[in-house]
Amino acid sequence: MQIGLIGLGLIGGSMAIDLKRRGFADRVVGMDADSVNAEAALRIGIVDELADFEKLVDGSDLVMIAIPAGAAVGVLGQVLDRFRELGEDCGKVVIDVCSVKEPLARAAHYHPMRRRYVATHPMAGTEYSGPWAAMSGMFDSKAGIICDSQESDPKAVRLAEKLYDCLNMRIIHMNSSSHDVHTAYVSHLSHVISFALARTVLDKEKSEKHIFDLASGGFSSTVRLAKSNPEMWTPIFIENSGNLVPILDDYIENVRKFRDAIADYDSSAVSSLIAESNKIKRIIK
Amino acid sequence: MQIGLIGLGLIGGSMAIDLKRRGFADRVVGMDADSVNAEAALRIGIVDELADFEKLVDGSDLVMIAIPAGAAVGVLGQVLDRFRELGEDCGKVVIDVCSVKEPLARAAHYHPMRRRYVATHPMAGTEYSGPWAAMSGMFDSKAGIICDSQESDPKAVRLAEKLYDCLNMRIIHMNSSSHDVHTAYVSHLSHVISFALARTVLDKEKSEKHIFDLASGGFSSTVRLAKSNPEMWTPIFIENSGNLVPILDDYIENVRKFRDAIADYDSSAVSSLIAESNKIKRIIK
Repeated sequence: MQIGLIGLGLIGGSMAIDLKRRGFADRVVGMDADSVNAEAALRIGIVDELADFEKLVDGSDLVMIAIPAGAAVGVLGQVLDRFRELGEDCGKVVIDVCSVKEPLARAAHYHPMRRRYVATHPMAGTEYSGPWAAMSGMFDSKAGIICDSQESDPKAVRLAEKLYDCLNMRIIHMNSSSHDVHTAYVSHLSHVISFALARTVLDKEKSEKHIFDLASGGFSSTVRLAKSNPEMWTPIFIENSGNLVPILDDYIENVRKFRDAIADYDSSAVSSLIAESNKIKRIIK
Repeated sequence: MQIGLIGLGLIGGSMAIDLKRRGFADRVVGMDADSVNAEAALRIGIVDELADFEKLVDGSDLVMIAIPAGAAVGVLGQVLDRFRELGEDCGKVVIDVCSVKEPLARAAHYHPMRRRYVATHPMAGTEYSGPWAAMSGMFDSKAGIICDSQESDPKAVRLAEKLYDCLNMRIIHMNSSSHDVHTAYVSHLSHVISFALARTVLDKEKSEKHIFDLASGGFSSTVRLAKSNPEMWTPIFIENSGNLVPILDDYIENVRKFRDAIADYDSSAVSSLIAESNKIKRIIK
């Protein structure tokens, strides 16, 4: 099978590496709006060839959209339009791998070729980006989410399942709106938190040059996500604004509870707040 | 040399293991207010013997106080009182390893035996606690801080330096008030952030049982510190309230900037906020 990969960054690149290595794809043809990324992906061997949009779509059995959330809505529409020009029975499938699913679901809902599209989200990544950051094994044992599969052709869904199976992912089905609430809690919120932590300490550094001398593993792990890039995360936050803003309000309220208890020297309140937080031990290793 | 170790938890236990293994101490005698901890430390071999307070202080060359911040103030006073009873020239030294230094500095400042006390803080740890969590190598290459050394006898300071050198720590000298500001930024704040994140998501779990199904590495690393226990962290937050509360206010303000920009769908503001946070790349690996 030939895969047409639109977006040659960390996610698309890492998928391409393992899909070829593990025999799912015979050939990967790619494109990227950033010509430096595109050339690098070709040189590294992530793609076999670079192609323009039409050549990529026309020659591929499966088109994968692996670009930031905001831009993906337009590109998905173009891919489905091209499928229609090629004929309703062209048999091609398009999947996207974006972190926010409802805007895409809404945009594609009434498209006549909707059933050739499978909405997915491989829940994996690192704080690095670009084809240089792509690596084998990044998706192993992580959650691979398929959304709104009742709106897709069963054969197209099976292809997406086979793809995530090949990446060793745990496949989870859910609808896009649940997906966007869940990821706001367990992924997008963590990123805002880390960004805000980085800003708070970097601000202090302006007057206190050695503020980071004492930083240890705890600080590094909490602030790690703050290295994530604005190109990916700005559209995720904006596209998922409706879910994320009320959660940020809840989070601020939780920080404020700690702040007030600490300001009041109320040991028993602080201790209860911490003890409740400790229930997270049940969830994470 | 015999070390008298008051507090047989993660920090004291890990120090004892390496100080004996690496030849700094010939013998470690210990006590712990929690008899289960005490018995475990003896069985594991962290201490050679358990002793009561007087026997421990009287028989040791160096007393190490490794108990939570709140309780350490009182115990430090008792140790210095006992040194005085034994004679001003008894030659013994006491160090503490607490995460908040000013309350101890203030409490000890006018004590006639102040010069026999060295205030220190080994900046290392894990989110686990108790003698079972103690391990060799925990301090290697981390920062070992010595505070207000001008108030201690130079020989006592040299002993503390030798001790941290034996633990392979990078020794940093600073005064207690700088220490408490710095740790509020790079350690205490991260803990509040993680606790508040855990609470926010655990609250949602009450109505949404599968909220954690999609949690990946990013969530785990940001929430990791939320496993830290209230016995250690409540007194740290309370003792360092004066520094921590204004920092929490700044932090809340930073989260709010993200929240408002996301609520306004203001991509360029979100992108600038993230780009500024990214400067943290310079600091952490």
